[in-house]
Amino acid sequence: MLGTYVEELGALGETPDGMYRFMYDEAWQQARDALLRWIDDAGLEGRVDAVGNVFGRLPGSGDGVVLTGSHVDTVPSGGKYDGALGVVGGLAALAALRAQHGTPVRTLEVVALCEEESSRFPANFFGTRGMLGLIAPDEPDRLRDREGVLLADAMRQAGLDPAAVASAERHDLRAFLELHIEQGRVLADEGVDVGLVEVIPGIAWETVTVRGRQDHAGATPMDLRRDALQAAAQMAREITTAVEQEGRPAVVTTGRWTVEPGQPSIVPGLARFSVDLRHPDLGVRDRLLDTVHRICATVAERHGVEVEIVRDKDEEPATMDADLLDVLRGSAEECGASWRRMPSGAGHDSQLMASRVPTAMVFVPSVEGRSHTPAEYTSPADCVRGASVLATALHHLAW
Amino acid sequence: MLGTYVEELGALGETPDGMYRFMYDEAWQQARDALLRWIDDAGLEGRVDAVGNVFGRLPGSGDGVVLTGSHVDTVPSGGKYDGALGVVGGLAALAALRAQHGTPVRTLEVVALCEEESSRFPANFFGTRGMLGLIAPDEPDRLRDREGVLLADAMRQAGLDPAAVASAERHDLRAFLELHIEQGRVLADEGVDVGLVEVIPGIAWETVTVRGRQDHAGATPMDLRRDALQAAAQMAREITTAVEQEGRPAVVTTGRWTVEPGQPSIVPGLARFSVDLRHPDLGVRDRLLDTVHRICATVAERHGVEVEIVRDKDEEPATMDADLLDVLRGSAEECGASWRRMPSGAGHDSQLMASRVPTAMVFVPSVEGRSHTPAEYTSPADCVRGASVLATALHHLAW
Repeated sequence: MLGTYVEELGALGETPDGMYRFMYDEAWQQARDALLRWIDDAGLEGRVDAVGNVFGRLPGSGDGVVLTGSHVDTVPSGGKYDGALGVVGGLAALAALRAQHGTPVRTLEVVALCEEESSRFPANFFGTRGMLGLIAPDEPDRLRDREGVLLADAMRQAGLDPAAVASAERHDLRAFLELHIEQGRVLADEGVDVGLVEVIPGIAWETVTVRGRQDHAGATPMDLRRDALQAAAQMAREITTAVEQEGRPAVVTTGRWTVEPGQPSIVPGLARFSVDLRHPDLGVRDRLLDTVHRICATVAERHGVEVEIVRDKDEEPATMDADLLDVLRGSAEECGASWRRMPSGAGHDSQLMASRVPTAMVFVPSVEGRSHTPAEYTSPADCVRGASVLATALHHLAW
Repeated sequence: MLGTYVEELGALGETPDGMYRFMYDEAWQQARDALLRWIDDAGLEGRVDAVGNVFGRLPGSGDGVVLTGSHVDTVPSGGKYDGALGVVGGLAALAALRAQHGTPVRTLEVVALCEEESSRFPANFFGTRGMLGLIAPDEPDRLRDREGVLLADAMRQAGLDPAAVASAERHDLRAFLELHIEQGRVLADEGVDVGLVEVIPGIAWETVTVRGRQDHAGATPMDLRRDALQAAAQMAREITTAVEQEGRPAVVTTGRWTVEPGQPSIVPGLARFSVDLRHPDLGVRDRLLDTVHRICATVAERHGVEVEIVRDKDEEPATMDADLLDVLRGSAEECGASWRRMPSGAGHDSQLMASRVPTAMVFVPSVEGRSHTPAEYTSPADCVRGASVLATALHHLAW
């Protein structure tokens, strides 16, 4: 059943260039409808909240809700497992628990969170923020996608009322467990079945804008140029080398580039690139950010260009709940799964959920550590093993 | 009159970000119509040929045509002088010669060439190629702009018949003189009034495509990445350093960049950049191209990525006609203008025209050497001086 879910969900938004399923778009709406059907088929109570989170509920006899799930949106050119596995793995777990054990004490819910990747709107963690009451009232009427579509209009188009966002807030959550692919190669390299996440690093995003002088490519001698791209390329190389020297687990990525005017015969007057810097230790991360800023200033001076750096995102590292990690460890052992504690490389909804609700994550191996690419893959056996550990933990928590 | 022409032509296609006047677009059509009015006002015979070149003709009593002019299209975010000065300078020269001297022996024509910059269609030198019979019959139905518009449809939209392209060919041209801004800072730095161009370097354009591995920015350790952008940035830096070490007049520019998938949180799987390499000595240029290829191969191996290099343009250097240069030198001296011989930095229609018709170019100073930018500027005095030298030379050639 789990394998079928993965494949059928992975067909919604699939292109020859990988997955493109962004919040409120057509593929996203198809995924919502498919999930509601599967939830119904599994004998769970289906519901869509005011921001588009999809819930499947197995009502308990007592108070409080134990929630599991992950996000249903993808990065551009993404894979079929990132987020999706936690959604369908949670659904399969609840279906199996209902079939075997009937009514729990605590209510169990699985959630397909509407947004985690910022692929369409700059509305990171929109689903989790909706549940935690952290969406600013003006966001639907302020945020736009790259085509200029207003978030509020996209919500209406998906059948949601942007004025009702606040009603998505929950106060009944007692625990959150997220099953997810590792997206790195630690588990695969070491042959370990599941990873128990202790900490999720705080991501820092910055945009570096370099302004030089736009000139004619044929008539401007090299020694008189102030080429914005050349300076930016040098910055990107030096930043990368500095973080490489810091060693694991520090990572930096310069993934988005704009070069203007972008003509072969014109010396670039402007170059802009993103910096994504991560380390589970906030002190180390901030020291590395200082290094990034120093490198940019030094290179800019050497190249006679101007540089401006804007901080786009600045997240605190999030610590997972120790009691839940103990439950997950015990469940892994009951399932005969080898396990290790580890930090997450990527950011996850769990990092935000952990600020309000006891939260823990369980990772399954990613083949070759590939993720955010159509080549992303986790074996069916690893998917099932992850869902079994999750189901075992949910059983401990809800019965 | 010349200053008014420059300003009025420079208002057609002007934006806050500089000039955008591309072959057959609305601003281009407005320029064509304005030029035809000015040609008529100057008592010249106006005509548009099959590819959209605009001619102003002062008929002579004898055989053969002496042609002057330049291109009317601009680069994106370009200036008001590149190309335009040669068009309106030629028009002013013919108007003055007609007023002062009446009918010449040889016919004089000024031309606004329809295309030189490849800004819209990959149809470089379309105007000059039309006059020389060098347009392939299938080009109008094959070439598209970035919006996917077919060249043939753009021609029809501008009132031209794509089936008639061959009729633009000329066999009556005896000489071509092109007035142009230097686009570099040699004349301005040395305080010389006009440059007599001896040679136009052969431009080589290549596209370097680097394929690495698209990975998750958080979960992929630095030491396991094959980041296409990092490899490309290193190539661009090493290529530039190598050409800087060669010294003037060698120039290389990496002006156009594509990074995919272009997300802050994804390690780039593909990076593509343009290389524009120029040197008036073909042997030196080709040796530098070998260096470029060696650098790309070495860096690709070091970074574990694949690199592919495609040659997009490969022009021979063009030598200007010695007799015409003598006429221009004598004319400069008659006008009291200081002069120097020099190579061109940029490519020009003259380099192609020179393959069939005796051709020479005269440069006027560019303030700070700026060109291919809205900051491009040549003083009114320098514009007038250039047009005077041109008019004097045309007088010698046509009477």
